[in-house]
Amino acid sequence: MSSTVIRNIGTLVTHDPELGTLHDAALVFEHGRVVWVGPSDEAPAADTGVDAGTRAVIPGFVDSHNHLVFAGDRSQEFAARMAGTPYAAGGIRTTVAATRAASDDELRQRLRTLVTQARRQGSTTLEIKSGYGLSVHDEARSLRLAREVTDETTYLGAHVVAPDTDPADYLALVTGEMLEASAPHAKWVDVFCERGAFDGDAARAVLAAGVRRGLVPRVHANQLGHGPGVQIAVEFDAASADHCTHLSDADVDALAGSNTVATLLPGVEFSTRSPYPDARRLLDANVTVAVATDCNPGSCFTSSIPFCLALAVREMHLTPAEALWAVTVGGAAALRRTDIGHLGIGARADAILLDAPDPVYLAYRPGVPLIAAVWKDGLNLH
Amino acid sequence: MSSTVIRNIGTLVTHDPELGTLHDAALVFEHGRVVWVGPSDEAPAADTGVDAGTRAVIPGFVDSHNHLVFAGDRSQEFAARMAGTPYAAGGIRTTVAATRAASDDELRQRLRTLVTQARRQGSTTLEIKSGYGLSVHDEARSLRLAREVTDETTYLGAHVVAPDTDPADYLALVTGEMLEASAPHAKWVDVFCERGAFDGDAARAVLAAGVRRGLVPRVHANQLGHGPGVQIAVEFDAASADHCTHLSDADVDALAGSNTVATLLPGVEFSTRSPYPDARRLLDANVTVAVATDCNPGSCFTSSIPFCLALAVREMHLTPAEALWAVTVGGAAALRRTDIGHLGIGARADAILLDAPDPVYLAYRPGVPLIAAVWKDGLNLH
Repeated sequence: MSSTVIRNIGTLVTHDPELGTLHDAALVFEHGRVVWVGPSDEAPAADTGVDAGTRAVIPGFVDSHNHLVFAGDRSQEFAARMAGTPYAAGGIRTTVAATRAASDDELRQRLRTLVTQARRQGSTTLEIKSGYGLSVHDEARSLRLAREVTDETTYLGAHVVAPDTDPADYLALVTGEMLEASAPHAKWVDVFCERGAFDGDAARAVLAAGVRRGLVPRVHANQLGHGPGVQIAVEFDAASADHCTHLSDADVDALAGSNTVATLLPGVEFSTRSPYPDARRLLDANVTVAVATDCNPGSCFTSSIPFCLALAVREMHLTPAEALWAVTVGGAAALRRTDIGHLGIGARADAILLDAPDPVYLAYRPGVPLIAAVWKDGLNLH
Repeated sequence: MSSTVIRNIGTLVTHDPELGTLHDAALVFEHGRVVWVGPSDEAPAADTGVDAGTRAVIPGFVDSHNHLVFAGDRSQEFAARMAGTPYAAGGIRTTVAATRAASDDELRQRLRTLVTQARRQGSTTLEIKSGYGLSVHDEARSLRLAREVTDETTYLGAHVVAPDTDPADYLALVTGEMLEASAPHAKWVDVFCERGAFDGDAARAVLAAGVRRGLVPRVHANQLGHGPGVQIAVEFDAASADHCTHLSDADVDALAGSNTVATLLPGVEFSTRSPYPDARRLLDANVTVAVATDCNPGSCFTSSIPFCLALAVREMHLTPAEALWAVTVGGAAALRRTDIGHLGIGARADAILLDAPDPVYLAYRPGVPLIAAVWKDGLNLH
C-alpha cells in the first residue's frame, strides 16, 4: 500500500522547527515519506487508516552506534564483571575467534535476529560496524553482511590489533589491503582510539586512509580514559566522537566549535559499572549530543533505545525531551542525515506509536515495552 | 488443554533444591501444576508440545509489591523530579483525588491494562495494594477491583493520612470502619511507616487492628530515612519489610533473626534518583531478600521485573543468579507462598520461556524484551 494516515494522535512529536509538538493530530505517509501533518479532524484520506487511540507518535529512533556482526557468547564474562572483574578492551578478541569460525549464514542469522529485535524496539535506522573479523576476509565479510540490512555501515578494522599480529603490520593491513576489501561495503571509517587499542598516530593514519578511499570518519574516543580521540575526531571533521566519557575542557571546546556530534552510550556505563559521561557539560557548551546503544556482546548487549533514553534521563540528567531529541535528531546528526530523526514534511516515514499518551513515559516507565507499532519507510513492521 | 510438555530447554532453572538447574531438559504441566522435570529425550507425551529451541525456561516472576488501582497522570511530576524536584510522599494525594473521581470501569480498565503488561513481562503472581482511595468506600472498592485479578491483595488504607483529615481521626477510621469494609477483599495489611506518613505508634495500631481482623502484616519500612518500620515489621512477624533503604545494624540483625523478608524495590531508587539499598549487607547477614517493582504512578512506574533484576545486579551487586532468586523464590517468601517461585514437582505451572539461552541474559541485555512466552497455571498467556 502506498499511503497511510495515522489519526487521533494524542501527542505528535515532529521535531520539525515549524510544526513542533501537536495534539489531536494526524500524520500521513505516502511512498515512504511524510506528506501531511495537521489536526486529526482535517486529515486527508489514505489507503490505510490507523487510529492511534490518543496515544503518542514520535520519530523512529536513530541508533547510530552498533556492533551486530559477531558470533560466540560472552554472558559469563558479563556475570564475572558484575562480580568485580573490570572491563578491558582485550575481551573483544574472544568474539573475534568465534566470528572468524562462524559461517556466513550463522552470522547472518544472528545479525538479522538482532536487527529485528532492535526495530521492534523502535530503531528504524541502525548504524552497524565491522570489527570482530580483523582479517581482510572477515572484515569485508562482516561489512557485506551488514550492508544487507543497512546503508549505514562502518569499517572498524581498527577495533583492536588482531591477535598474534605485530601492531605496525596490522596498521599497514588496516590502512591497505583490508581497507581496499572493506570500503566497497562501507560508508564510514572508525577507529577505537584508546590505550590498549590504537594511539593518536595510528588513529590518524586509519582515518586518513579511510578518507582517501571515500569513507567519512567517526571515532571511538575517550571511553576508558583521557586521550587524543576527541581532538582527532574534530581534526578530521568526523561525523561523531563516540563515548566521550573522559573529556578535558579543551575536548569540550573542540567539540563545541565543530560539526562533530558527541555520541553518548550510557548502556556501556550501565553494563560495565563505570561512571557516566557528563552530558550536561556538553549541552551547556552547545555541543550536539546523540545517545545510542552500542549494542555489542562485550561491553553492552542492550539494543534498547528506550532503555538508553531512560539512563540518559536518570544518570546523565537530560530532560525527557532532550533525551528523545538525542536518540532521534541527535542520532541523525551523528550520521549526517537530515531525512530521519524528525517527522517534518518530506522526512522518511519512520515513526513509532507508543503505548503511552506522551513520550515522557519512555523514561517514566523504564523497562516496560511501550513500542506499540513501528513504521519504517512507511511500512508497518509490527 | 490439560497438559503441556516443553521440550528442548537449553537451561531450565527450577530453584528446586534437588532438581537444581538442568540442561537439555523438559518440563511437563498438568492441571496447572508441574508434574515432571527431566532430560528432554525422556519427556512423556502431553496434549500440547512446545519446542523451546534450546532457550532458557525459568519460574514465573513473583512481583510482591504493586499499587495498580489508581487514576490520573503524574508523568509531569516525574519530569519535574528528574529536573531536580525531590520526591516526597505527599504526591500520593494527587493520585487520590483522581482515583476517587474515577468510575469502577475506569479503574478496572487501567488495572487490567497494567496487569496484562506485567504478565507479558513474566510476572505470573502480582501482589496489589489499595492506598489511593483513603476513604471507606474507595479503599474497599480498590481492593474489590484488585481481588478480581489476584488473590494477593493488601489493605493499605494507611498509605498517607487522607487530605483534610485529622491524623488521629484518620487512624481511627483506618483501624475501624475502613478496615471492616476492606478486610473481606484483602489478605494482607500494610502501613507506610515513614516521616510524613505514619509514625511507629500509628503503624503498630494499624497492624494490630489488621491482625485482629485476620490479615497478615507487611510494612513499607525505612524508605526515605531511618525509622522504626523494620523493627515493627519483625515485632509483628510481618511477611515482608519493603524498601529497607536506610537500615541500622540493629535493623539488619532483627531481619536476620526473623521470618520477615527484606523486599528491595530498586526501580524506586532509579525513578527517584535516590541511593540504592545495601543488598549485600542483607545477604551477608543471611536475611531473605526479595526484589519487586513497586509499580505505582508516583515513585516508580515500571512493571518490569527484568528491569528491576538488571538494577539489582548493576546497582545492588547481586549476582544474576541471586537476582533471579530474589524475583522468584524471594518474592514467594515475601508472600509466604511455597507453591510459586520454583518449578519443583507440584509447583504451580507458572513459567517463562526466555528469548535467550541463559537467564544471565536478563541482566546482560537490559531493556531488551526477552520474554518469549509465559505460562500461568499451565496456560500460555502469549
